[in-house]
Amino acid sequence: MTLSTECTEMVSFRDDYSAGAHPDILAALGTDNLKTQTPYGEDEYTLDAQRLIREKMNSPDAVVHLVASGTMANIVCIGSCLRPHEAVIAASSGHIVVRETGAIEAIGHKIINVAPVEGKLTPKGILKALQQNTHYPHMSRPRLVYISNTTEVGTVYTKAELTAISSVCKSNGLLLHIDGARLGMALAAEKNDLTLEDYSHLADIFWIGGTKVGTLLGEAIVVNNPAIREDFAFHIKQRGGLLAKGRVLGLQFQALFRSNLFFDLALHANRTAKALSTGIAEAGYELAAVTESNQVFAIVPEEAVKRLQRSFEFYIWENLDDGRYIIRLVTSWATEMEAVEKFIRML
Amino acid sequence: MTLSTECTEMVSFRDDYSAGAHPDILAALGTDNLKTQTPYGEDEYTLDAQRLIREKMNSPDAVVHLVASGTMANIVCIGSCLRPHEAVIAASSGHIVVRETGAIEAIGHKIINVAPVEGKLTPKGILKALQQNTHYPHMSRPRLVYISNTTEVGTVYTKAELTAISSVCKSNGLLLHIDGARLGMALAAEKNDLTLEDYSHLADIFWIGGTKVGTLLGEAIVVNNPAIREDFAFHIKQRGGLLAKGRVLGLQFQALFRSNLFFDLALHANRTAKALSTGIAEAGYELAAVTESNQVFAIVPEEAVKRLQRSFEFYIWENLDDGRYIIRLVTSWATEMEAVEKFIRML
Amino acid sequence: MTLSTECTEMVSFRDDYSAGAHPDILAALGTDNLKTQTPYGEDEYTLDAQRLIREKMNSPDAVVHLVASGTMANIVCIGSCLRPHEAVIAASSGHIVVRETGAIEAIGHKIINVAPVEGKLTPKGILKALQQNTHYPHMSRPRLVYISNTTEVGTVYTKAELTAISSVCKSNGLLLHIDGARLGMALAAEKNDLTLEDYSHLADIFWIGGTKVGTLLGEAIVVNNPAIREDFAFHIKQRGGLLAKGRVLGLQFQALFRSNLFFDLALHANRTAKALSTGIAEAGYELAAVTESNQVFAIVPEEAVKRLQRSFEFYIWENLDDGRYIIRLVTSWATEMEAVEKFIRML
Amino acid sequence: MTLSTECTEMVSFRDDYSAGAHPDILAALGTDNLKTQTPYGEDEYTLDAQRLIREKMNSPDAVVHLVASGTMANIVCIGSCLRPHEAVIAASSGHIVVRETGAIEAIGHKIINVAPVEGKLTPKGILKALQQNTHYPHMSRPRLVYISNTTEVGTVYTKAELTAISSVCKSNGLLLHIDGARLGMALAAEKNDLTLEDYSHLADIFWIGGTKVGTLLGEAIVVNNPAIREDFAFHIKQRGGLLAKGRVLGLQFQALFRSNLFFDLALHANRTAKALSTGIAEAGYELAAVTESNQVFAIVPEEAVKRLQRSFEFYIWENLDDGRYIIRLVTSWATEMEAVEKFIRML
Repeated sequence: MTLSTECTEMVSFRDDYSAGAHPDILAALGTDNLKTQTPYGEDEYTLDAQRLIREKMNSPDAVVHLVASGTMANIVCIGSCLRPHEAVIAASSGHIVVRETGAIEAIGHKIINVAPVEGKLTPKGILKALQQNTHYPHMSRPRLVYISNTTEVGTVYTKAELTAISSVCKSNGLLLHIDGARLGMALAAEKNDLTLEDYSHLADIFWIGGTKVGTLLGEAIVVNNPAIREDFAFHIKQRGGLLAKGRVLGLQFQALFRSNLFFDLALHANRTAKALSTGIAEAGYELAAVTESNQVFAIVPEEAVKRLQRSFEFYIWENLDDGRYIIRLVTSWATEMEAVEKFIRML
Repeated sequence: MTLSTECTEMVSFRDDYSAGAHPDILAALGTDNLKTQTPYGEDEYTLDAQRLIREKMNSPDAVVHLVASGTMANIVCIGSCLRPHEAVIAASSGHIVVRETGAIEAIGHKIINVAPVEGKLTPKGILKALQQNTHYPHMSRPRLVYISNTTEVGTVYTKAELTAISSVCKSNGLLLHIDGARLGMALAAEKNDLTLEDYSHLADIFWIGGTKVGTLLGEAIVVNNPAIREDFAFHIKQRGGLLAKGRVLGLQFQALFRSNLFFDLALHANRTAKALSTGIAEAGYELAAVTESNQVFAIVPEEAVKRLQRSFEFYIWENLDDGRYIIRLVTSWATEMEAVEKFIRML
Repeated sequence: MTLSTECTEMVSFRDDYSAGAHPDILAALGTDNLKTQTPYGEDEYTLDAQRLIREKMNSPDAVVHLVASGTMANIVCIGSCLRPHEAVIAASSGHIVVRETGAIEAIGHKIINVAPVEGKLTPKGILKALQQNTHYPHMSRPRLVYISNTTEVGTVYTKAELTAISSVCKSNGLLLHIDGARLGMALAAEKNDLTLEDYSHLADIFWIGGTKVGTLLGEAIVVNNPAIREDFAFHIKQRGGLLAKGRVLGLQFQALFRSNLFFDLALHANRTAKALSTGIAEAGYELAAVTESNQVFAIVPEEAVKRLQRSFEFYIWENLDDGRYIIRLVTSWATEMEAVEKFIRML
Repeated sequence: MTLSTECTEMVSFRDDYSAGAHPDILAALGTDNLKTQTPYGEDEYTLDAQRLIREKMNSPDAVVHLVASGTMANIVCIGSCLRPHEAVIAASSGHIVVRETGAIEAIGHKIINVAPVEGKLTPKGILKALQQNTHYPHMSRPRLVYISNTTEVGTVYTKAELTAISSVCKSNGLLLHIDGARLGMALAAEKNDLTLEDYSHLADIFWIGGTKVGTLLGEAIVVNNPAIREDFAFHIKQRGGLLAKGRVLGLQFQALFRSNLFFDLALHANRTAKALSTGIAEAGYELAAVTESNQVFAIVPEEAVKRLQRSFEFYIWENLDDGRYIIRLVTSWATEMEAVEKFIRML
């Protein structure tokens, strides 16, 4: 993949959604442009994308829906699972807790916060939340566990970890929902031992992020649990998530999944992060965390932060007591290896 | 505009969102594809599209937000205007009443239904609704009037009508919100005497539909009333309507408004409808309503319906008592005049 | 029952909740006052009241919950039945439509309005609402039918009518909920041929009004349908309807149902209405509707309205075109026959 | 006050709402029982109770509303203050966080949890919550601070503490709401240096608990901030909190506030707790916390717990690692000093 940025000045390690779409995906958007299609997600491209995803999961009965944004995906997934008095268990660092403007509370549900362990929820944390929420009917009934993979800090669940969580959920009447905004990067991670097919067994519902892996927009929701499938489309429509021209999502997911593009793009993001991470360590700087996917957390002195900010965009994550900073560097499908090398050089 | 459909068989008069995007808009989507941009609607294309829309309205202080779908636009517009106990007044034929799966009720608001007159709300209807809803605090307080232009049945408000409604709203403490899913067609209608600038004076908030006029997706919300502007972005994010790559909306609205494209496309839709309507009348069939925009309602016998259905897609709107049918034919920016001629011939 | 009002001046025919509680109910409130009880509706009086109600219904498995107000009863009954995308079918004159400040919309549900026939919903009306709401997923799915007995205009459903509605519900996957704010008056009506036991078969859920039949507050919700029973208490607590000292409701319903008091009080209300109605007719005035329960609608000239208003409180219901008025007179358990006679005399 | 329990067996230290109403309040319920009154909280007793409360606060403009339960009070107070995207800051031990079945989330609002210090919120905790919630519009905007006085663990805010919190709120655009389920006990606490009048200056809105101080039901909401006053009654009605016979609340609050009864009853609760606490300490047992109001937390060995459970009802609060238990003992207006003495003896 040889992409060249048209911007000669600042290089962005700020996030993985600052560039447009991968050229193949962009090209796909024009397919059969004037051919009329059944609207509202029943166009032939969406049907084909749904089929492709089911195939990759080896799960012929799963129901797939495409929506525009991650917050929308979480709203309709969680909303379709819960009754008003039922609550979500989530890490206090979870995206729905800290970065979705109370979207889940806005549809009426309490989120029970659990302290994360390296950004992850653990069976122990889930069980503790259950034990602390039994004073019925004065407490909401925990009914769904929300996790993100990769997590919000870039860590990745192993198969053993996810299986243990799934198992705790099943034996306690909890549904498992996985926010896969960066599921591609999780699947492409070095330490990953999960397949898409595993997700179809371990989660009741999950979504596969498109936006952060190279589409212009779009996330694919996979409904495994038959009990949630039937009326799912109503929730999407009611929450404003149903696009008239479903083709705009269908064509992009078709492009992602008819070849290995989805995995290749995620792998590229992880590899550039790894290169960044290795380079930073070799340059003598500490990492604040092991780099498991496409997020790198480096500890650098103030002087270096200022120098790097002249050529690179990134977030300062934390001010350490010793005057140093933790900075977060995010790579993506569009990150060029040259940009990584330049960063290492300038560091 | 010389567009050729790639589908040689069925021609769709079913709706105005079955084709893809106008080629210029599609092309615009690739602009600066790999250039990184500030996400969440602060990219340079969105900023420029917002500027263009403000200019077309001659309203430098209006706030413009782009969202993906019409239901989302209505949710955030209405939700940002109302307190929990405040209600919407709408025609019983209004889109939010009959085609949005209770999206407005789902965010907590009552809709007070008023019988429409040719699909329109009237000052008289609004005043009656006010008079019937004064038993406080046992009744929700009417606070916002919702109208659509063009209406759901293709009729168009005149300047006198809209001014009268706006005036009733102002003198009764009501906000006016206009659903502009087909605002382009309204502005391009023969009987139209309103300008975009008028909308910035007459409505507190309204939205300009992109999807039905030729974008792949996207509607532009215009917030005129300063009291609603400040926290508007929170509502969009909380309801799942904020796209990470705002460029996908910005680039399309830039394409619509940097030239006269928005008006040209709407005009084409209206003209093909007019041709259809005239042809049908000349062929000796009745129209169920005057054709004011891009929707044609024709009365045809069963035999003709069956014959036409072999080559054309359209909705049967109503079964008349005399065995005839009202059929609805919708044209769009993508409708070819040849398709219209073919329809008339076959009729 | 010989009750004397302590107010010597105005007599109220305004509503059936202007007086306090029936003396026996008031006395019951002091029972075992200092004896400690399990709170939150698990006190012995509530348990006994629940048992008494189940016995009167001959329905040992029904679940009974006591709440403070009618709007609360409707909120928790309807909220416990519906998923977010499911709608209520109700007469446009229904209490939840016009007198509860959008309480049902506030918990997220659309109400589909049906024109009433003498204040009642009919199978035909329900079926029409179903037929008009099938454009899924663009429309909310009708899932529950709401009726009131007596209706908001004092009419009473016959067994044949209620059975027909129940049957339409069952064959169309609809739940039936009955607002029984004045269920006592319905059961005590001359034309009534329904028993409490019938309600346990015909409705999925209903409530028995206490406030309008002589308690200080309190309505008894009866959950017949096993599918709704399990988590019902959560809904009550979450909506703010669970009283710490459940005894305040339990003691009053115990007093209503351990004897025939509930029926006697309702019967008194109906009888005084009947006397009023008969007297008005005999005095040569028209009735705007047959008097079926404790609401009387009389047509009187302006002069009489003014005269009567000096001694009696009542609502003017409608101004007729001929200068006459429809006035509404409501009697209650506390209405004295002397007051009725005085009214007739002064008329 | 010489009250004798009619129950000769178990004595309850389980909570402060297991007995009925104080005899004077119970007696008041029968006042003018058959006199008709304007319903829905406009009866003369409610008007008088509102006046009495305003007088006690020396705050002639405050608006007072009476509702049936504490959860209802919190729902309408918080709901009337916030827009959908605005959040509450509360201690993670707050009643709305852990004991109201997600009632606040059910009306759409996020609660930002802050670790409590002895059950209390601190200015530092509030400021930290503000600092952690500035990533707009991706985070809800903190807009209201919720505290309880006494707190859920019986601690009491000093005037200095409450003034500091109020000041932080004012300078940061936050409204202050105080849950006063046990406000009486807070005002009657030994360490208290706040007056009711102080509350009218320091809080935007608060409520005075009736249920836990001796009414059968009822909490008095006081709206200080003029901006929240206007439409308050709509919120009460919409949430199901408006009682037809407002007199049932008005008469009880009249009884509480026309004399010193409110303070006397709270004082009795605190004094019996103090006696319990002192007795326990003198008997050689540790207290898990200083007794500031009517909740006592004692550390006792398992053997003692079992012995006491034969005669007394109370909650086991925590199992300590050394095999001992923290038990919670709650006293109330109805607790007899003899019961306290018996407890000490048996300990």
